[in-house]
Amino acid sequence: MKLHWSPRSPFVRKVMIVLHEAGLADTVELVRTPVAMDKPNLDLLPDNPLIKLPTLVLDDGTSVYDSRVICAYLDTLGGCGLLPAEPRARLLAERRQALGDGLLDVLLLYRQERAKPPQRQTEAWLDAFSLKVEAVLAALEAEAHELQAGPFDLGRIAIGCALSYLDYRFPDIAWRDGHPKLAAWHERFAQRPSVLRSAPTETP
Amino acid sequence: MKLHWSPRSPFVRKVMIVLHEAGLADTVELVRTPVAMDKPNLDLLPDNPLIKLPTLVLDDGTSVYDSRVICAYLDTLGGCGLLPAEPRARLLAERRQALGDGLLDVLLLYRQERAKPPQRQTEAWLDAFSLKVEAVLAALEAEAHELQAGPFDLGRIAIGCALSYLDYRFPDIAWRDGHPKLAAWHERFAQRPSVLRSAPTETP
Repeated sequence: MKLHWSPRSPFVRKVMIVLHEAGLADTVELVRTPVAMDKPNLDLLPDNPLIKLPTLVLDDGTSVYDSRVICAYLDTLGGCGLLPAEPRARLLAERRQALGDGLLDVLLLYRQERAKPPQRQTEAWLDAFSLKVEAVLAALEAEAHELQAGPFDLGRIAIGCALSYLDYRFPDIAWRDGHPKLAAWHERFAQRPSVLRSAPTETP
Repeated sequence: MKLHWSPRSPFVRKVMIVLHEAGLADTVELVRTPVAMDKPNLDLLPDNPLIKLPTLVLDDGTSVYDSRVICAYLDTLGGCGLLPAEPRARLLAERRQALGDGLLDVLLLYRQERAKPPQRQTEAWLDAFSLKVEAVLAALEAEAHELQAGPFDLGRIAIGCALSYLDYRFPDIAWRDGHPKLAAWHERFAQRPSVLRSAPTETP
């Protein structure tokens, strides 16, 4: 398998964590494929017309995206049970994954908007992004005891990656302030071997 | 069940199509909840801290999002088989769903960007959005015969909704030009009763 990869993409990181959990990391060739919202990387186009990371290419040439589809595929391939079979547990894991992915979507746009010259920024967007980040953190703090109690799954991976991305790109938000239970959960998350091995870096 | 709904959201439309396919449309109360990127609707916050449509609230108060999670839940509930059980078919359906959803993500941002005053637009983004739309249309044209041949599923629903959204919000793109097989597939898609019943409208 071949994974279009970048060391600092949080959606790629989700996939790397699953690969490590599944013991499949050595079976995948990482192809460094930088992408940016304002510079579409045409090398990625034949495998994914959306030109987005992560994109996995199977040995028979089939391409698989987005991160959610790749993670579910690798989870089945590795038999790791990161997506619970029991319907209620599965629904909650999938909702948590959507919450983590959704927070990342907000943060990626937020970062783009903050990087613009002030005269091109949209104030109402910045306000909305900030409000959503605060709302998600409050919701996660309220369910932090459930995050602590349950098994490691795709929902927790997405949420953990989003919080780590806050640390990486938004240190000014200081998200731990006012969210002590969530911070405690994330501390444990960050020490998991698969998470440590997938930390943003400059080299594969 | 209660669905936070808006008549013109393409992601809501996916859910409405699944509800009609599953024969569950009458079991859901539609709550009109307008959202906009620059005007977060705080009514939605208790059910979804991302403040996004669609959001489904089950009778026990459990909230379910995003559209992909809702569609899979309703598909199971209705026993419609819109997500194939066979692994290879399921992977392709999930990838197609990601392609349709990803095209919609691009189109929603594209529309926001075009609506800004010119001095606040980012030219490189507009170019990237246009390139991605063209690349997705070319990829879909190349697999249009497979879209025609296979069964109706969540992948085809996402792709069909994205093409219908192109018609609705980007008539200037004239996406059928150069994509005759895809246009023929969409014509059949658009005539399906569940699709007809979910067309954008001003009233529920």
